[in-house]
Amino acid sequence: MAVYRQPVEEDIVDSVKVGLIGFGTIGTGVVRILTENAAWLARRAGVPIRLKTIVDIDLERDRGVPVEGITLTHDIGDILGDPEIRIVIELVGGIEPASTILLDAMSANKDVVTANKALLAAKGPELFQAAVEAGVDIGFEASVAGGIPIVRCIKEGLAGDRIRSISGIINGTSNYVLSTMTEQGRGFSEALKQAQELGYAEADPSLDIDGHDTAHKLSVLVGLAYGMSVRPGEIFTEGIREITDMDIAHAGELGYRIKLLALSKRQQGTLEVRVHPTMISARHPLASVGEAYNAIYVMGEATGPVMFYGQGAGMMPTASAVASDLIEISRNLRLGIRRRMPPLGFYGDFLQEAAVKKMEDLCTKYYIRFPVEDRPGVLSKIAGVLGDNGISLHSVIQHGRSGSGPVHIIMLTHEARERSLQQALSKINGMQEVLGKSLSIRIEDALNPF
Amino acid sequence: MAVYRQPVEEDIVDSVKVGLIGFGTIGTGVVRILTENAAWLARRAGVPIRLKTIVDIDLERDRGVPVEGITLTHDIGDILGDPEIRIVIELVGGIEPASTILLDAMSANKDVVTANKALLAAKGPELFQAAVEAGVDIGFEASVAGGIPIVRCIKEGLAGDRIRSISGIINGTSNYVLSTMTEQGRGFSEALKQAQELGYAEADPSLDIDGHDTAHKLSVLVGLAYGMSVRPGEIFTEGIREITDMDIAHAGELGYRIKLLALSKRQQGTLEVRVHPTMISARHPLASVGEAYNAIYVMGEATGPVMFYGQGAGMMPTASAVASDLIEISRNLRLGIRRRMPPLGFYGDFLQEAAVKKMEDLCTKYYIRFPVEDRPGVLSKIAGVLGDNGISLHSVIQHGRSGSGPVHIIMLTHEARERSLQQALSKINGMQEVLGKSLSIRIEDALNPF
Repeated sequence: MAVYRQPVEEDIVDSVKVGLIGFGTIGTGVVRILTENAAWLARRAGVPIRLKTIVDIDLERDRGVPVEGITLTHDIGDILGDPEIRIVIELVGGIEPASTILLDAMSANKDVVTANKALLAAKGPELFQAAVEAGVDIGFEASVAGGIPIVRCIKEGLAGDRIRSISGIINGTSNYVLSTMTEQGRGFSEALKQAQELGYAEADPSLDIDGHDTAHKLSVLVGLAYGMSVRPGEIFTEGIREITDMDIAHAGELGYRIKLLALSKRQQGTLEVRVHPTMISARHPLASVGEAYNAIYVMGEATGPVMFYGQGAGMMPTASAVASDLIEISRNLRLGIRRRMPPLGFYGDFLQEAAVKKMEDLCTKYYIRFPVEDRPGVLSKIAGVLGDNGISLHSVIQHGRSGSGPVHIIMLTHEARERSLQQALSKINGMQEVLGKSLSIRIEDALNPF
Repeated sequence: MAVYRQPVEEDIVDSVKVGLIGFGTIGTGVVRILTENAAWLARRAGVPIRLKTIVDIDLERDRGVPVEGITLTHDIGDILGDPEIRIVIELVGGIEPASTILLDAMSANKDVVTANKALLAAKGPELFQAAVEAGVDIGFEASVAGGIPIVRCIKEGLAGDRIRSISGIINGTSNYVLSTMTEQGRGFSEALKQAQELGYAEADPSLDIDGHDTAHKLSVLVGLAYGMSVRPGEIFTEGIREITDMDIAHAGELGYRIKLLALSKRQQGTLEVRVHPTMISARHPLASVGEAYNAIYVMGEATGPVMFYGQGAGMMPTASAVASDLIEISRNLRLGIRRRMPPLGFYGDFLQEAAVKKMEDLCTKYYIRFPVEDRPGVLSKIAGVLGDNGISLHSVIQHGRSGSGPVHIIMLTHEARERSLQQALSKINGMQEVLGKSLSIRIEDALNPF
């Protein structure tokens, strides 16, 4: 059989040397992949990729990966000041010193790779601007949805299409908790405890459970999909703490699943961006995304629906995403190319100001649960307040009391304005017959109703 | 708010001019996307992409898309001989003249884009070799799974990882037929007729239904994932004609779904490649891929499972894939870059000979249905032959007779060798008590058992 061979070329570099700052879990995965897959990566990149230097505070701990031939140091200057090192991988996390490290590396004319979604959400526009001004590449495939190559999918694979909406399960911890509640009938605290025991949730889980991590990633996705800048503070963010096993069960009876979704929708001149628990049809592809898996459902004008599914976190999936960035940059370096691809895949004004739609102007259907006294007239009183606010009901469920405590009235509304709903709820929550705070969950019926 | 802007550069080209050969359905979609999305594409590509010339036999028919300012001609020379045209899109289909068109275009120093999976399966290695020798780019995102950017996902997104296996639903027609049988309880012929009425199946559906189209696409995926050359003739290919509503129902009772899968698995030095109806767990993400949707489930060593889901065919999804190739090539052309990315994403020997595992050496579990006479002793006789061939049974189902005709014995085996199974089946099919050909369906229990 014939051998098919790319002609030998005059390469500008005979290897690409890399510096790693941050030798934690992901860093260890990167070292492993660069070592174990060295020959494979060279075949993909066209040039060997060699890890020359690692910077970390803790150089004593054995990470179980080979570090022979790699310089281990506490001094970032050993990377930033080394002209041989062409790519700097930042896996420090957090805003500072990560931000300064990246800016200094770019000033030193080095391409950079980061997995730091919190930083990109906070300072992405400034970092991207610094990259284009320095004429260097910035890779951040690992910052959203770990092993799912969603950054490249939007920037390159779907580049010819205009994206209408994105609906993403992009926080593994929350998805694990909700999936466990759904499949094993557990309560929130119990499911969270289980997630913590299995390492899916941190000791302080608030960044994940309260939706902030999801909002960080959504901010990055919105930049990629629309070339629009939305800071996390502009994204309405609601977590999953209030969801009870009762809500999960009711959702199931109604043919829905509850998922923590990152949602963005482009509409006439405005952009809807929001993060909150959402009821979606049990038949929707996102509904069956279980455990700690991530999935991003993209609706393109031409392409229609496309979904990307995989592990959103973990040492090796995230390290693999870092490696894909190293390969892309190395493919450029070996040919002496830079600035081929702008950070977000847009030329010219690559980030425009987004006209974010006010949350109070949202129009959607709601599931609402009211814990109330079990006595006549309560239901009609609640329905009356909703009606006064222009909210009409699709259906009402009231189960008989089982044991002591409040009974729960469940209502599904027709499409209503968020503003009207909040006004009605504030009034209803103040009623004497209402024994606790009501809970409302937004419903996405036609997930992408365009 | 700040405006984030890529600095103005000295572009080598101020627009990229494109020629289109083949003004059929996909071609019409390409014209629409290049027209309607022109400003968007320019923002993504960094340079306007302008369709200059269209070649087709039929220039009279109104396709409902604007062609003002575009030269319409019967003469391919008007594209191949036009030095202004930098990219040639081949949407003619079939082997010839498509192959000659692509080779001539590359000889004329033009980058090419094609959606032609039959051609790539038959002559991909030669076309890729011609591309690298001519120093031009060849884009073929549209050749596999239409709107799903699977080519880039493997070549770039997962480039840092080694892919263990691919399991794909990559023929919309077959998936529509099987999904309709499953969800509506219809027979094969009835479901196929429905697919034909809805435009999901051709008048002659054999290319789709018999698995050949799936094998063509698998051949392309194997090249991308492993850098290995496998011709369709080397891929064991079995279609879905023999599947009955009874098998679908039994699969459901057993917790399985039947899907036509393209399978490839890398194992110690060999490559398993096969296309056949497959029973997979009803809980597997591929199981819920309904209608004419496609999905590709990739198992990476580091990344773990990743799945890509979307529309595998249709005018606009496929046109969007063509547009993504135009953007990639234009991003190169505007900077005067060529050969940045080898056709399959591998440098050096980009296609190696695959040691394809012999089908008879396959080891898997089987579902087998035997139509038999309803009399004592038949079951034990069949089980005896299986046992003589070293095939042990996991379970047996025999429903009572309902009406005339044969009764059906269903058996699930433990892992067995294909060779042994075929020997046993050939003996059993010859038995007097067996009233028709038995049907066997391979089971993938742990879909990616590595």
